Amino acid sequence: MTAGQHADSGALVADLQAAIGDARRVSTSESVLRTHGEPLMADMPPAPPDVVVFARSRDDVVAVLALAREHGAPVVAFGAGSGLEGESLAPRGGISLDLTGLDRIEIRPADLQATVGAGVTRKALDRATGEHGLWFPVDPGADATLGGMAATNASGTTTVRYGSMRQNVLGLEVVLADGRVVRTGSRTVKTSAGYELGQLFVGSEGTLGIITEVTLRLYGIPEHVVAVRAPFPDIEAACRCAAALVATGVSVIRCELVDASTIEMVNAYRGTRLPADVHLFLEFGGSREGVEGDVAATRDLAAEFGCTDLQASSAWAERQELWAARHDALYATQHANLGKAMFGTDTCVPVSELPGAVAYARGLIAAAGLEASIVGHVGDGNYHALIAVDPRDEDEVARAHAVRGQIVRDALARGGTCSGEHGIGMGKMGYLEIEHGDLIPLMRGIKELLDPAGILNPGKIFD
Amino acid sequence: MTAGQHADSGALVADLQAAIGDARRVSTSESVLRTHGEPLMADMPPAPPDVVVFARSRDDVVAVLALAREHGAPVVAFGAGSGLEGESLAPRGGISLDLTGLDRIEIRPADLQATVGAGVTRKALDRATGEHGLWFPVDPGADATLGGMAATNASGTTTVRYGSMRQNVLGLEVVLADGRVVRTGSRTVKTSAGYELGQLFVGSEGTLGIITEVTLRLYGIPEHVVAVRAPFPDIEAACRCAAALVATGVSVIRCELVDASTIEMVNAYRGTRLPADVHLFLEFGGSREGVEGDVAATRDLAAEFGCTDLQASSAWAERQELWAARHDALYATQHANLGKAMFGTDTCVPVSELPGAVAYARGLIAAAGLEASIVGHVGDGNYHALIAVDPRDEDEVARAHAVRGQIVRDALARGGTCSGEHGIGMGKMGYLEIEHGDLIPLMRGIKELLDPAGILNPGKIFD
Repeated sequence: MTAGQHADSGALVADLQAAIGDARRVSTSESVLRTHGEPLMADMPPAPPDVVVFARSRDDVVAVLALAREHGAPVVAFGAGSGLEGESLAPRGGISLDLTGLDRIEIRPADLQATVGAGVTRKALDRATGEHGLWFPVDPGADATLGGMAATNASGTTTVRYGSMRQNVLGLEVVLADGRVVRTGSRTVKTSAGYELGQLFVGSEGTLGIITEVTLRLYGIPEHVVAVRAPFPDIEAACRCAAALVATGVSVIRCELVDASTIEMVNAYRGTRLPADVHLFLEFGGSREGVEGDVAATRDLAAEFGCTDLQASSAWAERQELWAARHDALYATQHANLGKAMFGTDTCVPVSELPGAVAYARGLIAAAGLEASIVGHVGDGNYHALIAVDPRDEDEVARAHAVRGQIVRDALARGGTCSGEHGIGMGKMGYLEIEHGDLIPLMRGIKELLDPAGILNPGKIFD
Repeated sequence: MTAGQHADSGALVADLQAAIGDARRVSTSESVLRTHGEPLMADMPPAPPDVVVFARSRDDVVAVLALAREHGAPVVAFGAGSGLEGESLAPRGGISLDLTGLDRIEIRPADLQATVGAGVTRKALDRATGEHGLWFPVDPGADATLGGMAATNASGTTTVRYGSMRQNVLGLEVVLADGRVVRTGSRTVKTSAGYELGQLFVGSEGTLGIITEVTLRLYGIPEHVVAVRAPFPDIEAACRCAAALVATGVSVIRCELVDASTIEMVNAYRGTRLPADVHLFLEFGGSREGVEGDVAATRDLAAEFGCTDLQASSAWAERQELWAARHDALYATQHANLGKAMFGTDTCVPVSELPGAVAYARGLIAAAGLEASIVGHVGDGNYHALIAVDPRDEDEVARAHAVRGQIVRDALARGGTCSGEHGIGMGKMGYLEIEHGDLIPLMRGIKELLDPAGILNPGKIFD
């Protein structure tokens, strides 16, 4: 499907311009449509909307939804466009509702909370919280918007300590498909007041309502931070050490795995001479006394798993250098596979299953004659195989798709999930059927309850 | 309404006995009906079911729901009966479905997880996890069942560090009203696979489905634990110190407030001579080095807020003694008010609002001529006013109800919630209307979707 497919987009655009009252904020320019319909990964085609509306307020959102209902036009919420599964693409055309203009930030330092417009980006929030010695730790890598992060339940390297968006969203303001504005949760860190509908919108990828405002937990920036690089004799030892470490309750903030072949690619890319071993990259944070104690305990623990060369530093520059191999893993893999596109996986398994799951994935990838980098949020059991694929080589593309499917089936057999953090979007609808076939009728029922006309982000999560 | 009200409970009982195949597990004995319909608090009347079924398996639950549909009989899930808002009472008669026979415990220590039957109690789980050096920290006080704790989103003293049930339930097995069995989540610590329906059942108080199995996060038992008692010059200083402490990211596991008048009642009850000041009771856990560092940092911090006599100990007996005033606060309040019943509140506010909220509550209570104890999970902003009421004194009861309503309205005005942890049940339906009137139509829609005949715990959360 392509742009302009919606029955009478001309009339829709005219009505939107009248309602928004500012023609510059209702765009049908080719470049704007293209940037709002461009997939991040090479495994799905472009899917531009018919029109992009740049909202500046909740009232704009209410007005757009009224016209979408009237015209029967799809509405796709758009933030940074950094969703990896096509969450913000418009495969059925319609309106891309750009929320980056909802950029209000309110910090309540005494409550360790922020209330932000859906369009506020992670880095903008970071600047605002930093002034108060606070931070919002959920870090998916991209400079995503908080609305998008809530809508996709984003997570990342710090989830082992701070959880995903699901654990950090205290309240939402949501505009429903019928135009009603509702508020979930409260400004408290806990509540047991009726059904927790906020958690229904978190991770719903814009299919149940448009999130316009998010209330978030904040945390004190740790007084003292230590970064650690630890090579291990094999992947099993590294994963077991990580699980043991998490079990001790030490103050680990990040706990990342990079496999040996990826370290080799990093060495080639950066001209470094790291031992070509599987590595854990760790970060600890808290009071100086607490962190130093925890790092000492970690050094002893890692030695039990065969790590004899643990490097640790609290100095900022040295921390960056210690972690450089983790930061550069994706670039190094791309560099080692120039001209290729990256096909990612996002499975998550119980941590005890991680060594087996990663070994199985490595075996599949090798047997299929593919190159891949494997990195993992190992404290959570979430790992990504980044398979380098020549997009013009149909056979290679088919093999990569097949390997991805096998990795997902293997993860499900281990009690895992097809998506640890990237969501379902357009890319994993088939996998969701396998994983939660029993729940899909309920998901559909809830979708019909909240969006009977099906105008909110159609063609995502399930058909 | 009273027991036996259901249209033809005789036929229902006969059918249940035939389906369960063990007459001893289908009871209409007066004492069994009474214990399954007895309120914990004095502010609601007894509400026994017509019949109690003691389930031993998911299949029993499926069979009971089939007969409930056929007979149009209410089904009320029952665990320990420790819900404070009448969650497990049967105001419309019908079947009390006792799930304590679902007592299977599976610990997966390498994954820091347990999968337990809904009827497993907190203390039984504690014994099972302890063998592996692990614990499940959510602690509502009572020896509740894990199914009941999930159904009511229980929390308590450790929530400041570990969150409520909502943050610790990874997956559920649920029998729906129509008999379908569904599984939410997975055995991973995070997932972004479609709508998170598990969070809809957590806190739904048995109105959307019967939870039969719960998969939980476990944590390593901290290697080193230190208990702290810290008196402060006033409640504002104590609350500000608590908020500052949480913001530092130190390893505080519990952070409890007890007000000065309650300390006086404790002194009278225990014959102790604690300073009649507002107190914080704290507990720290982690590695020895980490905890000792954090306690030192806390001592410095508390001094900034006027605490000059912070007592700390890591020895078990001394820890019990330091915390005795917190543990005995309820008994001491009851002892000081013999013959009276306790009317509790459960409001939660942003931590910065806690000093004002508690002062306001104290003022209301005094103005109404009532006695009350105030204790709080201060790290979370959740506090309980335990008002001592003579249940035979209609005027006193009316004043207590009025004060409770004013405390709730005040909390809502401060961005808080009517229920931090006890749920809505039968006791707070009116408050839920005030707090989330905009969401109640959605809650009703979801209820109708999942339980169109209204057989699951009718008369709870909303009418």
